Amino acid sequence: MSSSAVAYARANYPRFLDELKDLLRIPSISTLPEHKDDCRRAATVLVDELKRIGFDQARLIETVGHPLVYAEWLKAPGKPTMLLYGHYDVQPTDPDDEWLTRPFEPAERDGNLYARGAADDKGQVWAQVKALESLMASGGALPVNVRVLFEGEEEVGGEGIANFVASKPPELKANVALVSDTELFAPGLPTLCVGLRGMIYTEIEVRGAKTDLHSGMYGGAAPNPFVALAQMLAKLKDEDGHILIPGFYDGILPPSPEELAAWRSLPFDEESYRLKEVGSRQLVGESGYSVLERTWARPTLDVHGIPGGFTGAGAKTVIPARALAKVSMRLVPGMIPAKSFELYKAYVEKIAPAGVDVEVRLIHSGDPCLIPVNNKYVQAATRALHEVWGKDTVFIRSGGSIPIVGDFDRYLGVPSVMMGFGLPDDNIHAPNEKFHLKNFALGIESIVRFMEESAL
Amino acid sequence: MSSSAVAYARANYPRFLDELKDLLRIPSISTLPEHKDDCRRAATVLVDELKRIGFDQARLIETVGHPLVYAEWLKAPGKPTMLLYGHYDVQPTDPDDEWLTRPFEPAERDGNLYARGAADDKGQVWAQVKALESLMASGGALPVNVRVLFEGEEEVGGEGIANFVASKPPELKANVALVSDTELFAPGLPTLCVGLRGMIYTEIEVRGAKTDLHSGMYGGAAPNPFVALAQMLAKLKDEDGHILIPGFYDGILPPSPEELAAWRSLPFDEESYRLKEVGSRQLVGESGYSVLERTWARPTLDVHGIPGGFTGAGAKTVIPARALAKVSMRLVPGMIPAKSFELYKAYVEKIAPAGVDVEVRLIHSGDPCLIPVNNKYVQAATRALHEVWGKDTVFIRSGGSIPIVGDFDRYLGVPSVMMGFGLPDDNIHAPNEKFHLKNFALGIESIVRFMEESAL
Repeated sequence: MSSSAVAYARANYPRFLDELKDLLRIPSISTLPEHKDDCRRAATVLVDELKRIGFDQARLIETVGHPLVYAEWLKAPGKPTMLLYGHYDVQPTDPDDEWLTRPFEPAERDGNLYARGAADDKGQVWAQVKALESLMASGGALPVNVRVLFEGEEEVGGEGIANFVASKPPELKANVALVSDTELFAPGLPTLCVGLRGMIYTEIEVRGAKTDLHSGMYGGAAPNPFVALAQMLAKLKDEDGHILIPGFYDGILPPSPEELAAWRSLPFDEESYRLKEVGSRQLVGESGYSVLERTWARPTLDVHGIPGGFTGAGAKTVIPARALAKVSMRLVPGMIPAKSFELYKAYVEKIAPAGVDVEVRLIHSGDPCLIPVNNKYVQAATRALHEVWGKDTVFIRSGGSIPIVGDFDRYLGVPSVMMGFGLPDDNIHAPNEKFHLKNFALGIESIVRFMEESAL
Repeated sequence: MSSSAVAYARANYPRFLDELKDLLRIPSISTLPEHKDDCRRAATVLVDELKRIGFDQARLIETVGHPLVYAEWLKAPGKPTMLLYGHYDVQPTDPDDEWLTRPFEPAERDGNLYARGAADDKGQVWAQVKALESLMASGGALPVNVRVLFEGEEEVGGEGIANFVASKPPELKANVALVSDTELFAPGLPTLCVGLRGMIYTEIEVRGAKTDLHSGMYGGAAPNPFVALAQMLAKLKDEDGHILIPGFYDGILPPSPEELAAWRSLPFDEESYRLKEVGSRQLVGESGYSVLERTWARPTLDVHGIPGGFTGAGAKTVIPARALAKVSMRLVPGMIPAKSFELYKAYVEKIAPAGVDVEVRLIHSGDPCLIPVNNKYVQAATRALHEVWGKDTVFIRSGGSIPIVGDFDRYLGVPSVMMGFGLPDDNIHAPNEKFHLKNFALGIESIVRFMEESAL
């Protein structure tokens, strides 16, 4: 590893870590109105630092919510342009009494840095900024053109950045995006996430009688929206986890034999996953598919809650007038959210039992995404990671959605390289969030080398 | 109608009505702690009045909640003893802005008296007391022995009276109970309720993962308790309203051909019932049975709510760790609650899908009840009602439960005559509750004549 930028990063690592701690001390909890100023303060720290290391146009971009951070360095003619993405907002800290040290007082223990936002996502954002500094300071320039776009609403839906990206601003013209908000599959194992599931999130509202009725007087004559809903939900998915909506699976692009073979060689222990991560009596889902296939490459349907009716302690003998089910489906490559919703809605309306009115609503949706591994930037990332980590990269997918990746693709035509350095046990969104210090250091070096390799 | 007591009642009717208005002005809402003293005040008014008209032992009996009212007159040796039951507590008044006049300022309009509690049940309680006064004042004695037992917790579960009755106190030794808390099937139609459904009220708790999980990451592997619950609930009852629990219908005593023929001749318009009372697109329930059969003489199963999970606005992508369903079944004569629960529990446990733990709990239960129409007190009531109303009595059932009727039977061996004077449109438990003034007057006369006929 001959990069002088890498040498610079290593020499300056103690300072980088101190700076990260300063950033972590700002309680930029995006969902709590009382931390609005803290969010702006974190954004301003990033703008100032990008200016300091030599970026142009470094500024806040106002949105309906917390501001975006933008900066650019476009002085590498003929070279590709890379769009760096991360987020400076963090999750709330409750339950506070489960933290061993205070969430906004960063503490080192056992090779980890504990603080809210350490891994998700300030540690990764700072790794990007410090990679940029290392390249600029050691060579006076970057190997590629770079635009930086950080947001402060990732934990609350990201409406501001979604609107900005959808407006296709000239500031976001780029060849590739580096999204630093994911994790390694296992400690020490360089990982690129190349697939995400999409989703449709819906509500089914069922109405029976015009008002709540007494179940003694009217039981046997008045329709019960909860019973109707149960009957409908039971027809959406069978007990083998197979979704029963006609045509729902049409068009799915299955993983290639090579990708499946690679997944089989990942260090994954199903029994340990069941016990430690899920903790249920047994795992469920479609037979004939592995856990990784079921969570990464197969559509699923879940019910999140069934509000309405009587929910207190004890007994109330009511036939509620209405019931609501929150139902979402995860979609995989080859599926189109609008099409899936249409099939779902038509089926739900068809299976509605007699006596009730049913309304099906789409709350939001997101596209599935798949990055081809033969993409030149994925290949560049692979070479960089091999050099820094001494191992071949594993290509994984995520069962969740990162909406910004779909937006970059849809509105900007920009593919994303999802190269992240969290670990599965980093406790993001939970007490005692941490970032493995080695991953912070090697993360900076990985980003440096990725940029250098992308220039080739 | 030669009764001098009836003549007394007619002569004193204006005063009786004024006294009832005074009782209705006391906001004895049993469920609201701030009205605790009002409940006691209403009870005390009743004790004082029973003393005044010549009853012995008139007193409050303390319970865990609001007090019972007890009084007795046992000076008719060789004659039967009648236990009078009613309740002085009332429902809350919300939504208050829908009342045309204030709920605790009784107002006469169109031959009705409007106030919370007018029909349910102070008007009927006062009709009992005024019948007793009419008999005592006109003849110096009652034709039968009488014990009075009023409660103040009918609207909140009646725990106090249930405990008292279960203790089989000597104060409640009687041959028959007169329960005045029901209604006429139609205006001007004398009615006796001779059957009630029983019930079992249950909870099904379903647990999947050890904690809430992200539906993107774990959808396809982690069990979803709401989906499991929907699948189970759908197997409890088919779309024809038929309950699928094996053995559930065993032992049911169907109504006699005569009783069914009598129901068919009742003034009941199914389309008007659907439109005005239920207000649903169509009525539901077992095919082959009329609405009255389905609600009076067939068991039913209803779901009252499914608490747990995400119930807010918008979207949260969670696989909840647990879900709960509130499920009750109405039972008919021939069914035993403990047996029905046992069949239900065994079946629910059997149909639980893989991956979840299921717990089935009984919250409370009540026996179904059927009063033989050839009972001598039912016959006495029929004669009395014919004389006062000029029509043959119709015998109906109720789909609901009046737990005290089952308790009188189970603990005291006392059958109940359910003779009430409400009307189906009295808006009990709703704004603008009313009591038809003619029914108050004829109710007093009916009770007078019932006591006289019971002495024969």
